[in-house]
Amino acid sequence: MGWCGHLVTHLSAHPAMASLLRAAATWGLFPWRGYCSRGTQGELSKGFVEALKAVVGSPHVSTAAADREQHGHDESMHRCQPPGAVVWPQNVEQVSRLAALCYSQGVPIIPFGTGTGLEGGVCAVQGGVCINLTHMDRILKLDPEDFCVVVEPGVTRKTLNTYLRDSGLWFPVGRLELEALPWGPEGYQVAGPVPGHEGTPPSPGTCPRPHSALQTQAQTPRSAAWWPRQPPAPMLCAMARCGTTCSTWRWCCLAAGCFTPPAPAGTSGTLGLITAATLRLHPAPEASVAATCAFPSVQAAVDTTVHILQAALPLARIEFLDEVMMDACNRHSRLTCSVAPTLFLEFHGSERALAEQIERAEEISQHNGASHFFWAKEAEERSRLWAARHNAWYAALALRPGCKGYSTDVCVPISRLPEILVQTKEDLKASGLTGAIVGHVGDGNFHCILLVDPEDAEELRRVKAFGEHLGRRALALHGTCTGEHGIGLGKRQLLQEEVGAVGMETMRQLKATLDPRGLMNPGKVL
Amino acid sequence: MGWCGHLVTHLSAHPAMASLLRAAATWGLFPWRGYCSRGTQGELSKGFVEALKAVVGSPHVSTAAADREQHGHDESMHRCQPPGAVVWPQNVEQVSRLAALCYSQGVPIIPFGTGTGLEGGVCAVQGGVCINLTHMDRILKLDPEDFCVVVEPGVTRKTLNTYLRDSGLWFPVGRLELEALPWGPEGYQVAGPVPGHEGTPPSPGTCPRPHSALQTQAQTPRSAAWWPRQPPAPMLCAMARCGTTCSTWRWCCLAAGCFTPPAPAGTSGTLGLITAATLRLHPAPEASVAATCAFPSVQAAVDTTVHILQAALPLARIEFLDEVMMDACNRHSRLTCSVAPTLFLEFHGSERALAEQIERAEEISQHNGASHFFWAKEAEERSRLWAARHNAWYAALALRPGCKGYSTDVCVPISRLPEILVQTKEDLKASGLTGAIVGHVGDGNFHCILLVDPEDAEELRRVKAFGEHLGRRALALHGTCTGEHGIGLGKRQLLQEEVGAVGMETMRQLKATLDPRGLMNPGKVL
Repeated sequence: MGWCGHLVTHLSAHPAMASLLRAAATWGLFPWRGYCSRGTQGELSKGFVEALKAVVGSPHVSTAAADREQHGHDESMHRCQPPGAVVWPQNVEQVSRLAALCYSQGVPIIPFGTGTGLEGGVCAVQGGVCINLTHMDRILKLDPEDFCVVVEPGVTRKTLNTYLRDSGLWFPVGRLELEALPWGPEGYQVAGPVPGHEGTPPSPGTCPRPHSALQTQAQTPRSAAWWPRQPPAPMLCAMARCGTTCSTWRWCCLAAGCFTPPAPAGTSGTLGLITAATLRLHPAPEASVAATCAFPSVQAAVDTTVHILQAALPLARIEFLDEVMMDACNRHSRLTCSVAPTLFLEFHGSERALAEQIERAEEISQHNGASHFFWAKEAEERSRLWAARHNAWYAALALRPGCKGYSTDVCVPISRLPEILVQTKEDLKASGLTGAIVGHVGDGNFHCILLVDPEDAEELRRVKAFGEHLGRRALALHGTCTGEHGIGLGKRQLLQEEVGAVGMETMRQLKATLDPRGLMNPGKVL
Repeated sequence: MGWCGHLVTHLSAHPAMASLLRAAATWGLFPWRGYCSRGTQGELSKGFVEALKAVVGSPHVSTAAADREQHGHDESMHRCQPPGAVVWPQNVEQVSRLAALCYSQGVPIIPFGTGTGLEGGVCAVQGGVCINLTHMDRILKLDPEDFCVVVEPGVTRKTLNTYLRDSGLWFPVGRLELEALPWGPEGYQVAGPVPGHEGTPPSPGTCPRPHSALQTQAQTPRSAAWWPRQPPAPMLCAMARCGTTCSTWRWCCLAAGCFTPPAPAGTSGTLGLITAATLRLHPAPEASVAATCAFPSVQAAVDTTVHILQAALPLARIEFLDEVMMDACNRHSRLTCSVAPTLFLEFHGSERALAEQIERAEEISQHNGASHFFWAKEAEERSRLWAARHNAWYAALALRPGCKGYSTDVCVPISRLPEILVQTKEDLKASGLTGAIVGHVGDGNFHCILLVDPEDAEELRRVKAFGEHLGRRALALHGTCTGEHGIGLGKRQLLQEEVGAVGMETMRQLKATLDPRGLMNPGKVL
């Protein structure tokens, strides 16, 4: 871009000026091509598409309706809004050049992994270029002694764990229902930059062991726009291997005293694209045991969870299913569990440690009135059990064939979980909607999977209203409107209510700092 | 402040303009009082000091030389640079009003906890007001069922754990040498906003259990300056209780899709002041056992650590001491450990689980040539052992009475730990400096405590050179220059080498967004 482009990029670092410039461009008062080539309907100039092809090669650029449609929606109810083009970069250099190109031309960038999001994060509300990172699927480096591996964003959890099989290490996942989404586990990108699930760190409660990313290589649009002539300069956060937890790359940055930008993960792709990640690995467990256990009430199931946590039993997973969901799973996965509020548990450890954990978990559960305790020790039994849980999404969909699913995602302090679950079930009755509940009770996060006929505008409205009402109820209980799915398009109002005016203003300022021209997945979150 | 003040505050949101304005003020081209009252020598106008008294009350403001001196240095070798005044706010409202006052007048703000930092973070290099938060020491709320507690920044770990004694919960600390610093454990503020130790999340390696802050209430200067007439608006990050880990508050924010600013913790007080934190608590362990174990070599000790981690033994703590440090501890704490590379270990769990862990830890250690395995099961023995470890800092100082200590803080992938430890010991010999090594081997972080005569400029130079050389060696091994002490004044050059030009530029931009006028602890980190 010329001096004018540089001037604009520079000036627009100031949030107020950025919006002024954008307004000016919209009003046509501002002739700079960068802004004018940004079609609100998503059309891109022929020249621009040629420029995309020059970066990634013609076979990796598509403006075909089918591809654009497929990339214009996720798993949610949000209507399809296709991008102007879809590109498949093969490496970080191409990502950097794409970001620089789009930024210099004022074209929106929408990162895309597998479209398994649930909040409309990939909808191209202002058109632009969809950057699909699934072709970047190399495992770059494995350091068994350091318990870490460096992967590109296209690497999936299953691919990674297959690769790790003989290393004695594995990459655990805290989320299960991910695997119930289309593309299945392949749809879960360990370092996926995309909106929705794989772009948001899983809630740790179901998997108390430390999470994943020690370091994240992120391409912020500005760093590209700032040094358009430099060699690709993906932003590396401070290196440190002292990490635990999914936000450790950030923690390390803090330890190194640097203020790196928020991880694009979890921000619906509005800040940048993750181009690689160093992930924390863990020793493969010596032995595992899973169990299902039925309870007389939601309260009893949650109490059991709290008591197990208080007893410091090292849970590997703990999941709650209400009787509706349990019934659906029984039918869909041919289980014979009793139709009641149920906990799915899993423990990892040595044979001896497991024996003790099982014993104590049973004591605690029975003390809370549990019945039908079923322990699955053989790998096959365990897989069958978890497969049923993984397929909960499909099981729920099967309750009303032809309908789409909409999942709420609130998270509350665990002590408030029983009351909000009970209230939610009452609301469900009152609303006449069909919904089943799965809860990551370990951390107070649960999903109410509502079934809705996408053609029925009235029902859609009621489903949205139900979700907003539930979100507000969670906020009133000092919870959050989203435990893991993110904000995307659907929860922007709730986010405002959650973080308040100062929080929103600060977020806007930080977003404007990293993306002064508002081109990273515009219209989302804020 | 008048319209002019507003204009400046607004304009200075743009980094470039901010520096321009600051320069203009410096050249005297810019008459606005806010800038002129900012004495580079740290003097503050009488009227301004009166304004401080109006906020917190006369008894809580001091311009006495003794107080200013005491707040002008930390535990490091960095020379004392006293602030113009020290204030002790009693609550968050006062912190907000102080931030607004200083910001409107262009006076630097230096957050202060207990001055136990090691990187000169509290030195008032541009004068200004030191905000000492130790009077904010209330425990605001305990939620045993939710495993969390809300505390003000003045609450110390020991106070908190005493308060928790009968709750069956505790707040574990991953760092030990904190307790060896002056003010002892009282010097460790769980949510301390200050530079150095208590302002930086402890390295998790020695304490693999998830860390602390679920939510942080932070006062950014801008939020005050932005809404000077509003009721105090401390910035709350998105609420979510699904957290683990010291940066979970941030993780939660990501989950909630919001881009809250980096935690002031770990950033040497350059972004804001932490005014409260919701901390993650853990069940008090049923039983604990500690051990010391001598090894024939550094390599053997580190190999043992890796093998214990690979065996997934749930370590509560693992610390390395080289033979110099072990010898110093023997003398200082009247221990009789053999003078050799030594591991200090601790396990928590049920009696049965502990028995198994002890057995396997011994197997692994002996396989690596360990000798003199000593297990301390009684509380008294354990305390005596850890007290010796906690006092390592004093023990090292005792090696050269009258000298000050300087601690390096590099962190490398654990696989590179043996080589860098060996190289460091060779460098020590070559340099003729006196130094002892303690390592948080669980995460590859170690400290070389060097003894230096503060009057000996030549020795100071050599110590600094040694630290920089070690830092560069760590970077070459894909490590970081600081695992937990932060950057402060001492490691700014190393930080640049660590994060590179793009990283530094991005950090500057984020800092300028949250602190457009560069008044939060200026001269640090960047």
